Formats: sequence, C-alpha cells, structure tokens
Amino acid sequence: MLALTMGDPAGIGPEIAQAAWHALRESGPAFVLLADPAVGGRPVASVEEARGVFRGALPVLPGPAALATVPVPGHPDPANAPAITGSIAEAVRLAVSGAVAGIVTNPIAKSVLQQAGFAYPGHTEYLAALTGRSGGEVMMLAGPSLRVVPVTIHVSLRRALDLLSTNEIVRVSRTTHAALRRDFGIPRPRLAIAGLNPHAGEDGYMGDEERTLIRPAMERLRAEGIDLVGPMPPDTMFTEQARARYDAAICMYHDQALIPLKTLDMAQGVNVTLGLDLVRTSPDHGTAFDIAGQGLADPSSLIAALRMADDIARHRRTA
Amino acid sequence: MLALTMGDPAGIGPEIAQAAWHALRESGPAFVLLADPAVGGRPVASVEEARGVFRGALPVLPGPAALATVPVPGHPDPANAPAITGSIAEAVRLAVSGAVAGIVTNPIAKSVLQQAGFAYPGHTEYLAALTGRSGGEVMMLAGPSLRVVPVTIHVSLRRALDLLSTNEIVRVSRTTHAALRRDFGIPRPRLAIAGLNPHAGEDGYMGDEERTLIRPAMERLRAEGIDLVGPMPPDTMFTEQARARYDAAICMYHDQALIPLKTLDMAQGVNVTLGLDLVRTSPDHGTAFDIAGQGLADPSSLIAALRMADDIARHRRTA
Repeated sequence: MLALTMGDPAGIGPEIAQAAWHALRESGPAFVLLADPAVGGRPVASVEEARGVFRGALPVLPGPAALATVPVPGHPDPANAPAITGSIAEAVRLAVSGAVAGIVTNPIAKSVLQQAGFAYPGHTEYLAALTGRSGGEVMMLAGPSLRVVPVTIHVSLRRALDLLSTNEIVRVSRTTHAALRRDFGIPRPRLAIAGLNPHAGEDGYMGDEERTLIRPAMERLRAEGIDLVGPMPPDTMFTEQARARYDAAICMYHDQALIPLKTLDMAQGVNVTLGLDLVRTSPDHGTAFDIAGQGLADPSSLIAALRMADDIARHRRTA
Repeated sequence: MLALTMGDPAGIGPEIAQAAWHALRESGPAFVLLADPAVGGRPVASVEEARGVFRGALPVLPGPAALATVPVPGHPDPANAPAITGSIAEAVRLAVSGAVAGIVTNPIAKSVLQQAGFAYPGHTEYLAALTGRSGGEVMMLAGPSLRVVPVTIHVSLRRALDLLSTNEIVRVSRTTHAALRRDFGIPRPRLAIAGLNPHAGEDGYMGDEERTLIRPAMERLRAEGIDLVGPMPPDTMFTEQARARYDAAICMYHDQALIPLKTLDMAQGVNVTLGLDLVRTSPDHGTAFDIAGQGLADPSSLIAALRMADDIARHRRTA
C-alpha cells in the first residue's frame, strides 16, 4: 500500500488521482489518497480500511488539517497551505511507521505555499527535513529510456557553474550508485558522468572543468569501486547506442539532464528522491492550474510514479 | 550536380563517399568528389565529364594540390593539408562559378590542419572567409525530427554565457528565418526561442537573461514581422508535441541544441551553413580516425547531407 499526497487541490492532482485509481484498481499497486474528502473519493478511517476499499473506490484518508476553502480548479488559495503540507507530513509519518511502503506526492505550487510561510524550496527539501536527512537528498528523473541525475538543479545556469564541485559530483554519484543497487535491483550499476562543456571540453580547448572538477571526482569514485565512464561529450551520450552502456547519467546541470529525459520520455518521466530512508516518487510535472478541472490532464506520469514507488519498495524488502 | 570535398583522406571520408555513391547512383543527387585520385573513384577532367560518369562510377576530379603522401587510414599527415584545403577552395570556386549547385564537405581534423598553418577554427569560418561573408555565417543542425540553431557554439559553457547577447540572438534568428524561406521553402517560418535557464528562469527566480537578453531580442524580431514563441523552457521544448509548433529552435548554447538533435536523430543529422551565398552542408560527425578504413563507418549522415544540399539548391532555383 502506498500513500498519495493531496498536492494543491486547485491543480490537476485530484483528477489524476482518480484517473490513476481507474488504471490501477485491478492490477495495483493500491494507494490511499491523503486528503480532505472534499476533493473526492471514498472516505476511510485508516490505511487498513483503505486496503479493503481500493478495488471498489479511491480511498481518501483525511490528513491532520482540513481544507480552509473549497478548492476552485485553477485558483489556488494560500489559506489551504496547512492542509497541503499536512498531507505531506502525514504521508511521511505513515511511511516512517511502516503503515505504507512508500509515498507519492501530487504536485504543489511553491509560490502558493511560500505566501503562507512554507520555508522550503520544494517537496524534496521538505521531505529531507522531515526525515532528518537534509543535504543528503538527490533527485533522479527516470523514464522507460533513461535515468538522469542532475548535480545542480533549480538555480540559474550561471549559478550552476559556480556551485558545481568535485564534492557534489562525488556525493550525488555515490548516492545514485547505492540507490541503483538498493532501489532498482541492479547488482553492479554503471554510471555515465557527463562533461560540462561542448565535446566534454575537447582536451581543455573549450573549458577546463572536466579536468579540474569532474575527473578528480571520477578518480575518487573509482577508488571506491564504482564502475563509471566519462566525462562524456554531452551531445552524444543520450543516443540509443550510448544509453545501452550505463544505468544512470550523472549530469552537471538541470537542462543537461532534463532535455534528453523529457525529449525521450515526456509523459512517462518519474521524479524519484534518492538518499532518503523512505521511498518517495512523484510525477514529473507541476500543478497545471491552466488546465485543472477540465478533464485534460494526462495521468501517465502519476501512474508511472505509483508503479515505480511500488517497485522500489519491493526491491528494498528483498535486498 | 554537387561537389563533395575530400576531407582528411586518413579519416572515413573516402569510404563514406563510396558508400554514398552506391546509395545515390540511381536516384541521385549526382556528385563529384574533389580529391586526389589516390583516394579512389574514376578520375575525370571536368564537372561535365563527372555528370556522364556518375551512374557507372564515383567521379573524382583532382583538386589544385595533389596529396604529398599516400593516406594511411587512422594516421593523418599534416603534409597533406594543402590537398585538403585545396579541395575546399576548389569546391567554393566551382560553386561560385555555378558549375556545381552546392558543396558538401567531408570531415577534416582541425588539429591536423592547424599544425600545417591553417588559420581557421573550422570549415564554416574558412568558407565564410573564401566567400567574403565572415561573421555572417550561422550553423544549423537539421534532422528528420528537428532543426536547431545554436547562438553560441564551440566555446566553454562559461564563455557561452559571457558571449550571449541580444545582437547575436537577433542576427542568428534573422538569418535562420531568411534561410527557412529561401532554402527550405517554408513561406512563413515559425521560430522557437529557447530560454537559457531552467524553466526559462521562472520569472527571474532562476536567472534573468530571459528578461535582459532574450526578450529584447524577441521584441526586435517581432517588430520585423518574424513569427516566434519563447523564451521556452528548454526541457519541454523538444517533445514531439512542442516540435510540431515551430520550424527551427534558436538555442542559446551548443549542447542545448545538440543534445536533443543527436538524441532524436543521431545518424541522420546534417550540418547546414546558413548566411552564405553558396549552398553548403556536411555530415554531422568527424573524421573518425579510430574506425577509418575498416568498413565500419555509417554513411547515413553524408547521404542526408547530399540530399539536403540538393533540396536547398532546388528551393533556391525556384524561389
């Protein structure tokens, strides 16, 4: 059993939750939506009850805080922030206690929550803080064709260049390697380390970060017995032929990772948080306020996220 | 009739020229290899003679300089630089005089030519200089799925950020727009302008170049009547759905353009030089010294380059 958080109830979360339930009600994995019953579904009083209900209806377990206002699709209300963050905190509580095998988070709108005093850049950092792992979290995007892990994430490209360091490349690669074994069941993972510059710098002719930052990180990782190749020319490392040679690509900045992932696997991408004690995935899209409530939202990424959380939880149990 | 330059004769140029001839001998487009006959093919004395020969054999027209040494696959010799650059100069001469409709260039190795005193960063700049258009050239990569045009190219990512300017975005977009009309037969081209930062900066939250550099360029281009959208979030602009809405993507740096192009169209990508008076394409790969002479080279990109040069020349004639 998995827990699905409410997300922003003015976004597409409620409707993709229903659509995912339709798609998974027979095959599973089963999940319980942690939300104010105003968003829909059949209210239940416990995870146990949700398990029995799942084949017949989407079970909804109220979180610690009710909604302050009735959600209007496309019009988020900061007054509902406590219900939104409460759903996340409740999911963590259930996962830590073992009542659910993992959590999947519906999209939230940072700007809406921040108006209400929410102090975290996003889900991932909030979850790391709730579980006492701040600074240890790593974001992976995984699709049917490719897994990518950016070393720097939601900062400007100029700031990404300033933040990139040997230590961070080592930390992210090490966490990814451990997760590929524990969470994805790959006994001897192979990592591809991307270069930063065109043609991976072409021997320093177009940038020297490959020599000053990336190769030293690779040496440290190899000394730990991690199997890797790189620094790879970024433009040719995502072809079908190249992808066959690695299990995950460690990328130096957001778009180096996200361009190939979304170009190849747009609707199927899943965001997986590595480096936490609990299992957490999420769909790889936002609240989509512009289409909320119109029946246009594509549940594919949420369905893939639920399946992936279930797979990860199973791998951890059998590890 | 097109002219194909020799390229570095120690690379895969000679063998992909033969393979392309096999693929195109019946259907065309016809082409003549401008090379020392030591690289193979049937020697001819003129473009006219090449035309008559093409169905029966790959015609080879000697350039102004013979090879100094017999080429050994995988072992380039700087002593052959005059023959290599001479082939390019001869191709330009034939194109400018109208004897051929366009030129396709086989790969050269910059480092080999530079040892022999060649003063240009690459083909494109040399061609621009030979035709009196230095500074006006623009590189497009075109595949079956996508056309991309990087505003900054073969520089480090850090330097790309320093070089990016409103003027260059305007120049490159304007040249691309004109070429889509004249060379690709698109009456009203639509351009997509990429953002620089993750999520195109998310309203300045992750970088401000979208506001300071890119939007001002878009305003100038719109004032000239050019149809464009942007600044687009780089990670979602190359999905199939997004690509349907534009004819070419103007990208801010090398890998933003080349990652999606090569991920989607690896073997089929063609390098097209826009902004010159002559028609010029090339395969989107290098000399591949490591596999030269072993029968392993894939001629797909060269074949696509020959077909595209022919298409462009035809569009120019009927424009």
